[in-house]
This record gives sequence, structure tokens and C-alpha cells, in this order.
Amino acid sequence: MLANIKVIAFDADDTLWVNEPYYRETEYKFAELLSEYISEKECIDKLFKVEMQNLKLYGYGAKGFVLSMIETAFQISDYKISGKSIEQIINFGKELNNKIIDILPGVKDLLSKLKNTDYKIITATKGDLLDQERKLKKSGLAPFFHHIEVMSNKKEDDYLKLLKRCDVKPENFLMIGNSLMSDILPVLKIGSNAVFVPFHTTWIHEEADENEFVKYDNYYKIKNPAEILNIINLSKK
Amino acid sequence: MLANIKVIAFDADDTLWVNEPYYRETEYKFAELLSEYISEKECIDKLFKVEMQNLKLYGYGAKGFVLSMIETAFQISDYKISGKSIEQIINFGKELNNKIIDILPGVKDLLSKLKNTDYKIITATKGDLLDQERKLKKSGLAPFFHHIEVMSNKKEDDYLKLLKRCDVKPENFLMIGNSLMSDILPVLKIGSNAVFVPFHTTWIHEEADENEFVKYDNYYKIKNPAEILNIINLSKK
Repeated sequence: MLANIKVIAFDADDTLWVNEPYYRETEYKFAELLSEYISEKECIDKLFKVEMQNLKLYGYGAKGFVLSMIETAFQISDYKISGKSIEQIINFGKELNNKIIDILPGVKDLLSKLKNTDYKIITATKGDLLDQERKLKKSGLAPFFHHIEVMSNKKEDDYLKLLKRCDVKPENFLMIGNSLMSDILPVLKIGSNAVFVPFHTTWIHEEADENEFVKYDNYYKIKNPAEILNIINLSKK
Repeated sequence: MLANIKVIAFDADDTLWVNEPYYRETEYKFAELLSEYISEKECIDKLFKVEMQNLKLYGYGAKGFVLSMIETAFQISDYKISGKSIEQIINFGKELNNKIIDILPGVKDLLSKLKNTDYKIITATKGDLLDQERKLKKSGLAPFFHHIEVMSNKKEDDYLKLLKRCDVKPENFLMIGNSLMSDILPVLKIGSNAVFVPFHTTWIHEEADENEFVKYDNYYKIKNPAEILNIINLSKK
């Protein structure tokens, strides 16, 4: 049981709601658009490469994803892809931003139990600021959170900045998320606490070896959100 | 003289450093690219219209600007614009993000004077999270700020959220910026204090009538950043 937790941060995409499958689905639609030039697998591999090259410049989110798809389409088609197809790629991005928000099982119940406690509950997410604020609003979960922290990245430094903004010490901070690379490892490394809730689809860029984590005392792995109530104490208020 | 200020927030673009002229410059390059189809003025007008249509979806920043330019180029050329030209538009966006940061006169001197006071000094800016963090880092001004607040918009509600995150009351908050619409009016409306520092180039979307503001007691207008020291008290520490 964890004592002295003051701030609990939830990752958003694929922790609170479904996200990654929509990106995977878009990749298949993108590959379909280029199927006269290249196989599906090669197309998706090339896109991933361009995304990684642009990551520092564009960061995470739908707009950067669209710009990388357009760039990849020119590479693959040698600039022969039609204007209408480019427009379709732009529309893929708009569709991503208009998706229904599918809240994951157990999330709402857990959040409502956390609401009347002394914990400050926030959401800490990578991605595009506007996209993430929009998703939180559309999800109807906004009232459960003190505020949303959109981070340009989730490395140790980024978490230290977050702790500074929230005025909380590492040992009083708990992060909950589905990405070992982004939500768990950097958080453990700065001496905070982390709960891993796996999701069925993980972007290759976020994959990690779980064995690296078990050595940390303040690492927890659960199957569904409700199990967090076995880790923290709810009787504060 | 303003008493009881605890948090001083600086807008970033065109308050701390030059930004808008680079966007205007890009618009002219964009119009040049489409000059076989349309006049410069009409091209820029059409782009503005598309940007306004996409604003809710894309928000502020270079990536959304690029996506709107591509969409406008298809409209204007009836999808005839070449792949190479679209690629050039994508590169305009990359160039925007690689610009030298030109700090405005007086800013560094003011910030260094504010550094050893009890004020919490932050930067509160619209735009793309990653772009703005990158600019702050490149500017070398980051050490002067407690943290950066990137806001998806700068309306009254957004400022109320910012005050909540910073745990500060409206009367203890001072905003400094170059946009009457974004930095001044919403701040005055929530009962906070605002200092207007005009910049020579203002995006049409940010223009406002100054006469609306003089009725507010907590509204100040200055010509250069150093004059802020006539408004706030520096002898706190």
C-alpha cells in the first residue's frame, strides 16, 4: 500500500480512452491509398521512419501524423500521388480528431471513487494540446480532474517540470499509464511511483521490455483500473 | 502602482520575441507559389478564410498553418498544384520552426531585474506546445521563467484555468502582452491586471479597438518593457 501520495496523474490515450487503434486503422487506410506503388507493410514501415525523423520537429498528435503521411506519400509515389489523395490524407487527420471517445472499462467508476478524496487528480498526456483538451472535454471526464497537463514529451526532465508546476515531491507523485516507456520508466527513475495498466495495442515507438521494471519497489502492474484501490488508501477524507 | 501581484505572465510571440512577421513573410511566399492562379491579395484572403474555418480543429501554430495552406492551394489551383509545390509548403512550416529567435529590445534586461523578486514569473502563450517550448529554449530566456503555460486559446475561461493551475487569485495576476484580444481583454474581464505592449505587426484575427480598454482601472499601456517597473514594485525582496 502506497502512503503519502498527493498527486495522481493518469495518462490519457489508451489509459482513459481508446486511441492507438484509430491511428493503426488510419495507417491501413493510408497504405491502401498507396497500394499501387508499394506493399502495405513497406508503406507502414516507411511512414514510421518519416514519423521518427519528424518527431523532434512535429511532436505527437494528429497534425504531425498527417504531415508525415503526406511526406511519405511523395517519397513512395515520386510526387505522382494526386491532389485528391493528399486531400484524403488531410481528411484522415480531421477524422481522427472527430472520433467518438471510447472510455475504457472501469475508468469512470475509479475516477468517481477518487473524486471525494484529498488526492489531486490530474491527467498527464503527450500529444497535441488542442487535440487532448478536446478529447478530455468530449469524454465527459473533465470534471474528475483538477487539470490537464499536456506534455511535449514524457522523459525524466518532462516529469521533473511537471512536478515543479504541480509543486509536489517525487515521492508524493503517482503516475498511471499504459506505456512502459513513457508513463512508467521515467517516473520510476525520478523516484516517483508508477502503475502500469497494459492496453492491447502499443505503438512500436512505445514498446519496452517489462523485465526492466520489476526491480523497482515503487512499480505496480494491474489489469484493470479498479485495482488501483488496492494500492492507494482511499480513507483520507 | 500595482500592489499584491504574485504571478506575472508574459505572452511570448511578439512580446518576448519576433514571430508574426515570419508568418506574414510565409504568406507572401505562399502567394508567390500560387501566382499563376490568383493575385497575392486574394490568395492571402482565401488562406485566412481557410485558417479561420480550421482554427477550432487545428488551433494555433505552424503545423495547422501548413495544413491550411495545403488545403487553400488545392482550392485555388483546383488540385492542379504540383507535389513539389506542396512539399515546399511543408518546408515553409519546417523553416518557421527553425527560425532564429529574435528577442525584443528591453526584454532580457527586464526579466533579469524581475528574477530576484518574489514574483512568480511565467510565460503564457497560445500556439503549439512543442513549437513554443522549443522557442523558449532556443531564446535562452527559459531560466528567467518558473514555467511555460501553453494555452490552446486565450479566452476568459482559459485564463481562469491558468489561474487555477497556478493557484492564484485574479487580483494577484498580471498579464503582459501585445494582443488586445488575447492578452488584455479576457484578463481584464476576469478582474486581473493587464499591460499592453504594442508590436508593429498584428495578425488581423487579433486586432481590436483600443478604446474599449481605457475604461478598465487595471489596464496599462506601455511602449517598452522597462516601463513595467513603473507599474509594479520591485522592492519585495
